[in-house]
Amino acid sequence: MADPRFFSLGGPFALNVLADIGGAKLHGDAHPDAMIEDVAPIDRAGPGQLTFLDNTKYLPEFEKSAAQACIVNPRFADRAPAGMSLLLADDPYKAYALIAQAFYPVLPTTGQISPAAHIDETATLGLQCDVSPGAVIGENARIAENCRIGPNSVIGLGVQIGEDTSIGAGCSLSHCIIGNRVTIHPGVRIGQDGFGFAIDPQGYVKVPQLGRVIIHDDVEIGANTTIDRGSGPDTVIGAGCWIDNLVQIAHNVTLGDGCVVVAQSGISGSTKVGNHVMIGGQAGLAGHLTIGAGAQIAGKCGVMRDVPAGAKIGGIPAQPLRDWHRQTVLLSRLVRDKGTSTDD
Amino acid sequence: MADPRFFSLGGPFALNVLADIGGAKLHGDAHPDAMIEDVAPIDRAGPGQLTFLDNTKYLPEFEKSAAQACIVNPRFADRAPAGMSLLLADDPYKAYALIAQAFYPVLPTTGQISPAAHIDETATLGLQCDVSPGAVIGENARIAENCRIGPNSVIGLGVQIGEDTSIGAGCSLSHCIIGNRVTIHPGVRIGQDGFGFAIDPQGYVKVPQLGRVIIHDDVEIGANTTIDRGSGPDTVIGAGCWIDNLVQIAHNVTLGDGCVVVAQSGISGSTKVGNHVMIGGQAGLAGHLTIGAGAQIAGKCGVMRDVPAGAKIGGIPAQPLRDWHRQTVLLSRLVRDKGTSTDD
Amino acid sequence: MADPRFFSLGGPFALNVLADIGGAKLHGDAHPDAMIEDVAPIDRAGPGQLTFLDNTKYLPEFEKSAAQACIVNPRFADRAPAGMSLLLADDPYKAYALIAQAFYPVLPTTGQISPAAHIDETATLGLQCDVSPGAVIGENARIAENCRIGPNSVIGLGVQIGEDTSIGAGCSLSHCIIGNRVTIHPGVRIGQDGFGFAIDPQGYVKVPQLGRVIIHDDVEIGANTTIDRGSGPDTVIGAGCWIDNLVQIAHNVTLGDGCVVVAQSGISGSTKVGNHVMIGGQAGLAGHLTIGAGAQIAGKCGVMRDVPAGAKIGGIPAQPLRDWHRQTVLLSRLVRDKGTSTDD
Repeated sequence: MADPRFFSLGGPFALNVLADIGGAKLHGDAHPDAMIEDVAPIDRAGPGQLTFLDNTKYLPEFEKSAAQACIVNPRFADRAPAGMSLLLADDPYKAYALIAQAFYPVLPTTGQISPAAHIDETATLGLQCDVSPGAVIGENARIAENCRIGPNSVIGLGVQIGEDTSIGAGCSLSHCIIGNRVTIHPGVRIGQDGFGFAIDPQGYVKVPQLGRVIIHDDVEIGANTTIDRGSGPDTVIGAGCWIDNLVQIAHNVTLGDGCVVVAQSGISGSTKVGNHVMIGGQAGLAGHLTIGAGAQIAGKCGVMRDVPAGAKIGGIPAQPLRDWHRQTVLLSRLVRDKGTSTDD
Repeated sequence: MADPRFFSLGGPFALNVLADIGGAKLHGDAHPDAMIEDVAPIDRAGPGQLTFLDNTKYLPEFEKSAAQACIVNPRFADRAPAGMSLLLADDPYKAYALIAQAFYPVLPTTGQISPAAHIDETATLGLQCDVSPGAVIGENARIAENCRIGPNSVIGLGVQIGEDTSIGAGCSLSHCIIGNRVTIHPGVRIGQDGFGFAIDPQGYVKVPQLGRVIIHDDVEIGANTTIDRGSGPDTVIGAGCWIDNLVQIAHNVTLGDGCVVVAQSGISGSTKVGNHVMIGGQAGLAGHLTIGAGAQIAGKCGVMRDVPAGAKIGGIPAQPLRDWHRQTVLLSRLVRDKGTSTDD
Repeated sequence: MADPRFFSLGGPFALNVLADIGGAKLHGDAHPDAMIEDVAPIDRAGPGQLTFLDNTKYLPEFEKSAAQACIVNPRFADRAPAGMSLLLADDPYKAYALIAQAFYPVLPTTGQISPAAHIDETATLGLQCDVSPGAVIGENARIAENCRIGPNSVIGLGVQIGEDTSIGAGCSLSHCIIGNRVTIHPGVRIGQDGFGFAIDPQGYVKVPQLGRVIIHDDVEIGANTTIDRGSGPDTVIGAGCWIDNLVQIAHNVTLGDGCVVVAQSGISGSTKVGNHVMIGGQAGLAGHLTIGAGAQIAGKCGVMRDVPAGAKIGGIPAQPLRDWHRQTVLLSRLVRDKGTSTDD
């Protein structure tokens, strides 16, 4: 089970209840009333525990797992070890996510406002907010109900935060409007000046950054990620975006809804990213580009030009993924064919 | 206009006053006494508002802009929509920067020292400094006048900070000497131990890091950037450098004056960078290199060798930009010529 | 000497004492009783000071150094300037590290717990811990003796920290167990949710992250690095690992003992890294990989597949280092041979 020093376990639940929660179906002779007490990783789960198989890399672990029950795609059902109860789901990972949420629900806020927080008298807090020690909430900030403001986080002047939003430890937010059900992990920096200056022989001239950061509902932002405010236009993160750790989002960038931005990638100023774009880890997008909806950008890709909707690209500079793979194969072949003669 | 929850608008100004401020010239029948109330982005500006055209990508927006006035390079003057007043400038972006600074001036410090800051009794603060709640200022730190120390920032033992310098929220500074008019954005880490250890079969042996970080005047440092202190020599950032977010600067690195370092790039230990070098986003420089003055390093470039002054380089490993582009073209052509035969 | 505002100098030591400390041998007519007062960089050291020569790039500085004494590999002994005393060591850098530690010892903790720290009454602190202003220590956290908790750092509910461990300023730790003699630099984020979600047409479904972060003894973690907790399994950092600044370590990653992870590199979820693996700066490892013991991964490398023990790899995608260098040479040659015809 999850370490009780850190996690509070709910349940138990009957197998058929879990099937309902996860949108899965009981398979074969799995007993609907069997009680499941916890979830666990496939190589550690035992009696009373439920696990899942999602990545086929873990089929060997599945075949010898001691889990009492497992969520699995129907096509692998016949590889289950004897005695394991199966929940069948087309997307076992999603089913597991829903079931794990039932076992380990997010605790409601308590409404506890630490006397060691520094809240400006003009700021407003909705009902049932938790504010931790060392949090600083500035003038005219407006925080809606059921929010959590983590220890030593700083909410700047005029910032607005929607309901059920959670700000981790040590963050700083300024010049921004944050939606509902947003999760911001520790160390995130939102709303600071973008990288805006004009060249001058006497030294660079700072360009006042007069826009904001707008973060729509249901966004998740990873630890130590930075999102600069707009220079005049706003920087906008669409609803349902998932942004990983150490990502850089420059001024005036707009992300559509449901984008996924993996760790350490960076998006340069004024680039417009469509809905449901996937950006791999350590990818970099130049400025002033348009990335079409549904595009998939491979990890480490260097994007210098606009990307059509639905395109899959990779490489530095970016090209269609298929071409990039071909180049890789071709280069390997050329080196092999030319042998040691290229080594001098 | 900029969101008044976050920004305080100055002005209005007559067009000829703005021309003077921006070093621009009134064009044609633009009325010198026309009052301008604000600046705005080219696609949103209207009556009473001034915008600018800098990137030719936005020429279509310029041609249909409703802005009352626009700063523009003389060569695009004849593409302005009817009725728009023009300010002509060779560098419209710089002119805009100066004018926007007039509309949205940086407010002077107030001299307010929060009772919730933790200031060691041996630290000294110049006149008219702002110190926010949760700031921690250590023994013998010396901060000159008109500085801002952001909420929950930590100024370590003995640190010195020059006049008119601004430290954002949640920063930590140790073992460093900071100049005048420096702007440090939230979450910046300056002066911690560099990555110094000797290999040993029994475990790595830490090498005491006995240098400092010296930051000269008029430097800007982006959010969550890290600058390690020197190992014996100092780590030095020259006057007027602009460093973006999430940049890594290792021990003993020296940057000359006026360098620009874009987000997520990294400079390894003891590399010496000349004056006015431009380093693109996600570029990486190996250690112990010398980068000549005025060199331009493309985004994502991997620099393994010294770079001559004025060189333009790109690619991994780095090579002259022209060669890198040729390789890219050549590879694309080879793949195209060989067709599907490389795909097996 | 090191700036006394930041460093406390010990010593002096006789040359033969220093030879013992560093595991080095006196050379020629170096006087064993000569007193050395300090260490200094090779280009600044003078009378009474000891320096070292490690990187052959600095041989010219060695040959004209005014240092009274220098630690050097025996093969360079005959290039020393007249009058310089030599300490011979096979690994001069390690010898220097040990000697510099003697001159600049880490000061013991003082046992001072700031009244401006926020320590939950259920937390326990061992003897002689230093807790700085603004530190927040949560419920049931357990911190062993001789630890330092930096200003404005946050130690979450239930976190355990071993002896002699140092947490810098502005860090946040949750859901983690930290070993002995661990050094965590400022702004590090440990234990937050990993990037775990399932795809769903109605929006991504968060997967509860039920594991921990386990950090073994003698680990060093650089500034603003992020280490996510496991999703069910733990994220594990082996004993003696050195991790640089701005590194991303995703959920369920395991690092073996003695790994070195250079700045801005990233390791994706569930990848298993063996003992003593070296990962260069800005390298990226995909998820669910196995990296064999002793592998060396070049800077900027993009690792998409498992890596055998002891392999040396580079490039994007990763390949044996020798092949990658050949490809680089081949490409340069092809471009040169084809001349300007590829430039159209």
